[in-house]
Formats: sequence, structure tokens, C-alpha cells
Amino acid sequence: MDNKKTENFSEWYLELVQKAELMDYAPVQGTMAIRPRAYFVWEQIQRFLDCRFKEAGVQNAYFPMFVPESLLKKEAEHFAGFVPEVAWVTHGGNEQLGERLALRPTSETIMYTMYSKWVSSHRDLPLKLNQWCNIIRWDTKTLKPFLRTREFLWQEGHTAHATKQEADGQVKQALDWYRQVCEELLAIPVLQGKKTDAEKFPGADYTTTIEAIMPDGKALQCGTSHQLGQNFAKIFNIRYKTESGGEEYAWQTSWGVSTRLIGAVAMLHGDDRGLVLPPKIAPLQVVIIPIYKTEEDKALTTLASQRHAVALQAAGLSVLVDDSDRTPGWKFNEWELKGVPVRIEIGVKDLAKTGATIARRDTGFKEFYIDDAVLEKVKSLMDEIQENLLQKARLFAQEHTHAVENLEELREALEIRKGFAKAAWCGDPRCEEAVKEETGATIRLVPFDSKEGGKCVYCGKRGKETIYLAKSY
Amino acid sequence: MDNKKTENFSEWYLELVQKAELMDYAPVQGTMAIRPRAYFVWEQIQRFLDCRFKEAGVQNAYFPMFVPESLLKKEAEHFAGFVPEVAWVTHGGNEQLGERLALRPTSETIMYTMYSKWVSSHRDLPLKLNQWCNIIRWDTKTLKPFLRTREFLWQEGHTAHATKQEADGQVKQALDWYRQVCEELLAIPVLQGKKTDAEKFPGADYTTTIEAIMPDGKALQCGTSHQLGQNFAKIFNIRYKTESGGEEYAWQTSWGVSTRLIGAVAMLHGDDRGLVLPPKIAPLQVVIIPIYKTEEDKALTTLASQRHAVALQAAGLSVLVDDSDRTPGWKFNEWELKGVPVRIEIGVKDLAKTGATIARRDTGFKEFYIDDAVLEKVKSLMDEIQENLLQKARLFAQEHTHAVENLEELREALEIRKGFAKAAWCGDPRCEEAVKEETGATIRLVPFDSKEGGKCVYCGKRGKETIYLAKSY
Repeated sequence: MDNKKTENFSEWYLELVQKAELMDYAPVQGTMAIRPRAYFVWEQIQRFLDCRFKEAGVQNAYFPMFVPESLLKKEAEHFAGFVPEVAWVTHGGNEQLGERLALRPTSETIMYTMYSKWVSSHRDLPLKLNQWCNIIRWDTKTLKPFLRTREFLWQEGHTAHATKQEADGQVKQALDWYRQVCEELLAIPVLQGKKTDAEKFPGADYTTTIEAIMPDGKALQCGTSHQLGQNFAKIFNIRYKTESGGEEYAWQTSWGVSTRLIGAVAMLHGDDRGLVLPPKIAPLQVVIIPIYKTEEDKALTTLASQRHAVALQAAGLSVLVDDSDRTPGWKFNEWELKGVPVRIEIGVKDLAKTGATIARRDTGFKEFYIDDAVLEKVKSLMDEIQENLLQKARLFAQEHTHAVENLEELREALEIRKGFAKAAWCGDPRCEEAVKEETGATIRLVPFDSKEGGKCVYCGKRGKETIYLAKSY
Repeated sequence: MDNKKTENFSEWYLELVQKAELMDYAPVQGTMAIRPRAYFVWEQIQRFLDCRFKEAGVQNAYFPMFVPESLLKKEAEHFAGFVPEVAWVTHGGNEQLGERLALRPTSETIMYTMYSKWVSSHRDLPLKLNQWCNIIRWDTKTLKPFLRTREFLWQEGHTAHATKQEADGQVKQALDWYRQVCEELLAIPVLQGKKTDAEKFPGADYTTTIEAIMPDGKALQCGTSHQLGQNFAKIFNIRYKTESGGEEYAWQTSWGVSTRLIGAVAMLHGDDRGLVLPPKIAPLQVVIIPIYKTEEDKALTTLASQRHAVALQAAGLSVLVDDSDRTPGWKFNEWELKGVPVRIEIGVKDLAKTGATIARRDTGFKEFYIDDAVLEKVKSLMDEIQENLLQKARLFAQEHTHAVENLEELREALEIRKGFAKAAWCGDPRCEEAVKEETGATIRLVPFDSKEGGKCVYCGKRGKETIYLAKSY
């Protein structure tokens, strides 16, 4: 790594994701290949969420990526929110199309057109579908691998319910799945809450969100879950006959997380030596490196390495013995760059003491263990490292969340101390807008336990809501 | 079902896939939603193949769907093969793009542009990547749900090897995975072989294929695996340093199967009552229907149903007790339409004999079993039905494969007896072209055990190859 995380954060991130082979740039600006090491992380996210979705009765399906312009236009607020970023297909083969087609920037309109065909009775509800797919947003903001690209992968859950209450419950449940995947799998602590009306999803009644603090103090929106009310149902005519014979519009929700989370992992846990992966999402969890000078020592250390590898693999760990013809130093650097959680070194001295040296990627700490203790130590390190990364990130988040009472303190929090600013807000959108213009920070969320009190950070009037403000990706 | 498989085959299929809730038509012509019952089948195909890929060292990744026109043009034969079916993006937001972008009709050109950055040494080989993604082909041939749509899902494996021999081995291995998934999971027997030069993948040295006979006698290409030689490597500059210090172009393969297979399953196994699903891919494997007239009988039969359901679920089966307020007849029809492999009926008479009636979806056969025998019977039926569907399809394929010696016999085989015609071919592309023009049939494949001998089905000269001809989807 040429760049340092604390010195050139942005360059450090760009160097990291490419050198650690998480991604590489593709010919079209703003697009990239997600390489196997990163895609593996995505597969773990998929597995984690997919089984929770299924347990809750959410079924997977697939809808077309082509959305006719007229369809996208049906919900005016929704269309206005997405149209600046839409990529348009105008030709099929040599023929110009009669109507240009949007590549889905999100799938509400195409899915709900079909929901209206499938929902007619209370028996058809709840309808809970999810799709894993690619999304196109022709973004003009600063592009950044994983965090903002013109194509990305995500899942989008879309549900229809008989009552508002049931839909509210679904919104909450999805957000909780997202909190779980961030904290339990990716070791990313998050804040939860509601977006303000200015920041909510175009077409939603309200939007809930989870947000994480990145090392440069900026907020990263990690997942959102929307209560769509009956807004789309009324436009797309999703109605059902009630048990008593009446007719009602369905209540709907939508929610999603994307491959952006891979970028969050790299950015949050990485260091000046490269990637640091939580053990639960590391494609390779343990690398064993035999260290030798003579051919005889090579045979002995390699044999010992392989013996350990077999035992660790039998315990369900993903292990590689790196017996390639590189120097130990080269191998140390290489596997640190790639973020392998645990390295085992087996040299002649280790053999003499019938043991091995175990090094942690997260702390760099290394220590000798006798052979009999290696398996248990490595197994417990998987949990310890996972937990340590989460706690470290939690501590960082706490240290970078500053209570502020006025604009001056807010500026100081954002510019000097960095991170989230916790403040009171009078609830007036004009104050929200003014703060954004003057500081570049937005209200990231209103926490679920928001309280009245204090003074509005902008106008000084009585506070109606607690808010968290930050600059963001 | 309004249509009959043997009378209005094409209408029957269209009715089937929609009524059984496998798909529904989307607003853009040639696109459709893949509904949960069908997507479940796709997930089983994914699971089956994905673990085989990974065992063989193939890693999953994701590449952009946007391919600049200039890139797609690099391999002339490849471009000519795909350009009539390309959908073009010309605008991003309100801006016209400098160069129009193809939506991937296949990913050789975009992937190999990046492979050239990643391959430089023999250490980098073999490079074996796969992606699960959507594909766009703006087809103008007859569109048909699953079998030919303008967007579909597939996997595409793309490998680079040091030697031709290793690449040949990869081509064979991928085709064998495809044969396995068809026969072992989907109960679709297939023929294997090579495509002729006229029918091979644009840009490949040779193409191997698996083909199945559909009930109307037409062939369905179920999967292909291509030896790309060094054709793309030379154009995209994928070179590696050999161990001895020289420099060579890599040898490449690509291979894929798609959601078309879901259509094959529906078409091949379905009957006049609806879908028939092999147990291994049925989202619901057993439906239990309590049959009663009085409230008391309802309680008793429902309780017995639930007791059986618990035991079956504990054995790993997917089971539903349909205790909804519909008539038994309605439920029988409904679950037959949806293709549930086994139905258990529990009526008052069954209770009196302390047992249940078990009905097979594939044969319609039903029989009474005492309670203690139900679990074992249902478990064995899962295997029996799976096997029976495969054997039935195998028999059908055998009965619809006709040895022919001349054009007249070929015509009779295609038009009257239906199915594959097995013949000899002199190897002259002009005979191949003439047969296609005069009969509408193409050479589906040259079997791997092709032999010289016999007389060319068209010109009567000495046969150089065995061929299988058929009309196709």
C-alpha cells in the first residue's frame, strides 16, 4: 500500500479495493467488475439475509429490468426522484423502439403493475416478494467503487399487506435484518432511525434507515426500508376484497441493501497494510506459511503446515498452505493485503518447540502455541477477531458522535472532530435546508427514541426531534 | 386447463406456465416476471451447479452489463453473430452518451478485456470465473415464455488455461455438469455432442451442446460449452509468461445454462391437468387435504393431517395442510395444476381405518396406507416419481429418435413421426444448408461417438459423421 489511511483517506481506499483484488475498473466510466474476493462477501450477505427472508415467508422472484417510460412516470414524485439518473434504451437490434425503456433504477413501478394482476382478495395478502438483481443509476455525483457506481447489485423486497399496521411491522422487520447483517456478519455498527421528509424515498410515506460512520467521519447509508402507504397501490390499482365484502387498497413496503456494503467493510476495517476482513466473511480464514532455508527444513515445515491445515479444515475453516516459491516476507505482505484474519508461521524454531506461531491480522499480535493448542486457539480467534472489529468500530463511532447545540458547534463537529453530530431540531424543513446549504451536512436520521427538548441547532427555537447530522457518501 | 397437451400443444404450454403461476407477462413485449414457483426451480439449479463449480475451483464474480460498441466489435464473427439482437443504451439521464452501449447479450468481450489485465504469468492460470446474471437479446424469432424471451437469467463460466488440452477438459466438464443437472435434478434426458461449424458459437473453435426432445418433437438446446481456442485471447491480448520464460496466448472456454430450463421442465413433464414437477425441484412436495362434512369430522381430519405433516416435515419434506374453506375437488385441481408430486387425502373413512390415501401426481394412482406406513411411502415416492419422470422422458426420446437414410425418410421422421432423425452426413456444409432450407431442420449435434459410414442423408455420398437432426426452439 502506497497510501496511508490517516493521511490520504480517499486515495488509500481506491488503492485498497483494487490491490486487494476486490474490484477492477471496467471500460464504461462508473462501472466495475466485482472480483471473487468481494463477490464472496456478497454471497455471505445473500446467505445471511436470504434464509431470514424465507423464514418470514418472503419468496424470491425475478422481474424485468425494462421499465417503459410511461410506467415510470405514473407516480410523479417517484419519477422526479429517479429520472435524472435513468439510463435509457432506445434501440433493439436495428429498430428504434416505439417508447424508450428505462433500465430499472428500482423496481416499484414494474413490480406493482404486476401485483395489481395478482392481488384481488384478502386471500392473496400478504404478498411478500424479493429479488436479487442488478440496478442501474446513471449517477453524476462523485463515483467511488462499491459506494457509488452506475451499476450495482442489490436485493429489493416488495410487500403488500391488508393493513397499515402489518406494513409498519414489515418495515421494522426488514430494517432489523439489515442491522443484523451489518453488526453480526460485517462487524459494522449502525445507527437506526427515520429519514426526514426531505430525505425519504420518492413516493414513500416514510423511510427508515441504518447509517454507519466511516473512518473519515462521513455517514454511509447502509440499508433502507420504506413504508409506501397506499400511494403506489392507488396509482397501480392494487386492491383487495375484504372478508366482509368491501374493497380496500393494499399497504406496501419496499426495502433493500446493496453491494455498497462490501465497500463499507473495506473502508471501515482496512488499515495501512491492506484489507482486514471479519472472519465470518473471509474467503480464506487462515493462511499457513512454512519458513525455511534448506531443502530439508522446507520438507519438515511444509509437512507440519499441512498437518495443521488438515485439522483446521476438518473444523470447518477455510485454510491455505502457501508453499509457493516466494519469500516469507512477500507472503506476509500479500496475505495481509488480502485481509486473511489469521496467519500461522511454522519455522525451524517453532518445530523444535513442537508448535507454531499464530498472528492476528486485526491487531498484528503474534504468539507461539504448542501443536495441541493451535486448533482451539485459531477457532477462538475467529470469534475474537470478529468481536474485536465490531467493538473497535463501535468505539470509533462513539468517539465520533458529538452532541452539539448550535451551528458553530455543528461546524466544529463536522470539520474538526469529524463524524455524526447529535442535535435538536425544531422540525422546520427550512432549518434542515439551511443547515445543508451552510455546512454540507444532512439529517441522516431521526432516531426511533427521538425526544422533544433542547434548542434547534439552526434557529434556536424549541426542539421537536432529536437528529443525527453528518456529511455523507 | 382449457387446452390439451396432445391437441393444442403450443396453446397448452402458454396456458400452463401462466396458470401454474410460473410466469406472467410484463409490459414490454418479450419480457416476463419469473414468479416464485419458477424461481424456486432456478434456485435448485443454481445450488446444484454452484457447488460443483466451486468444488472445481470456479469462483463467482460479477461484470458490468454495459459493453461499449467498440468492444463488442473487436471479434468480428462474434459481433456479427450478436449485433442483430443487441439492445442499445444511448442516453444516461438527460445526456446523450458519446458511444452507445450494448446490454450484454453474452459477456466474452467485457470479461476478456479485464482478463487481459489479470493474466500475465503462468501463476495466474487457470483463471476460472462464473457469473449468475441477466442477459438481454432483442430476439425477433417467435417469443415464448422461458424458451425465448428478451431478458433471461443464466450463468456464464469463462476460463483461461495454459494449454489447449486443459481447456478441452474444461469444455467437457462443464457439459457434463449440464447433463447432470438436466438428468439428475430436472429429469430431462439429453443427447450430447458437438455443433457443426454452421451452428457453433460465434467466435468459438467448437461448441458442445446438450439437446432434449420436447413433446412436440422439437429439439431444445439445454446448455452449451465452447472451446474458444486462442481466438479471443489474441484479440483481447490475454498472454502469459511460461515457466521457461516464453510468452503464450491463453486458451479459453465459455459455457452457460439459462432459465430456459424451467420452460423445458414444464413442457416435458406437464399434462392436461397442469404442471408435473420432479420432487427434487418442487417448492411444495406434499399437500395434505382433510376431507369432511361436519364440524366434528373437520376437527378430526385436520388434526390427523397436521400429525402427518409434522412427521413429514421432520423428515425434511416440504408439506402443506390445505385446511382452507374450499371444496376438496377445488383443492385437488389446484394442487394438481401447481404440480405438487404427492397428495395425501384424509377423510372419515381413512380415519376409521387409521390411515390415509396417498395419490401420485405423475401417474394419478392412489392407494390407502395405514398411518405407520405413510412416512416411508411418501419418502420412497419422492425417489420413485423423480425416477419415473426421467424414465418416461427417456422412453419418449427413444421412441422419437428415428434412423433415416435419405431426404424422404427425414421428411417423414420430422413431419409425421416427429422428433430427432439420426442420419449420416458427408460433412459438406452445402448439404447441411440444403437440408435446413428444404425441411426446416438443423443438425442439432454430432454425437461424441460419431462414426464414418452410411450415406449422406442429402447427397447420398459416403457419410463422414453421424448426425442428429431436428426442428428446434
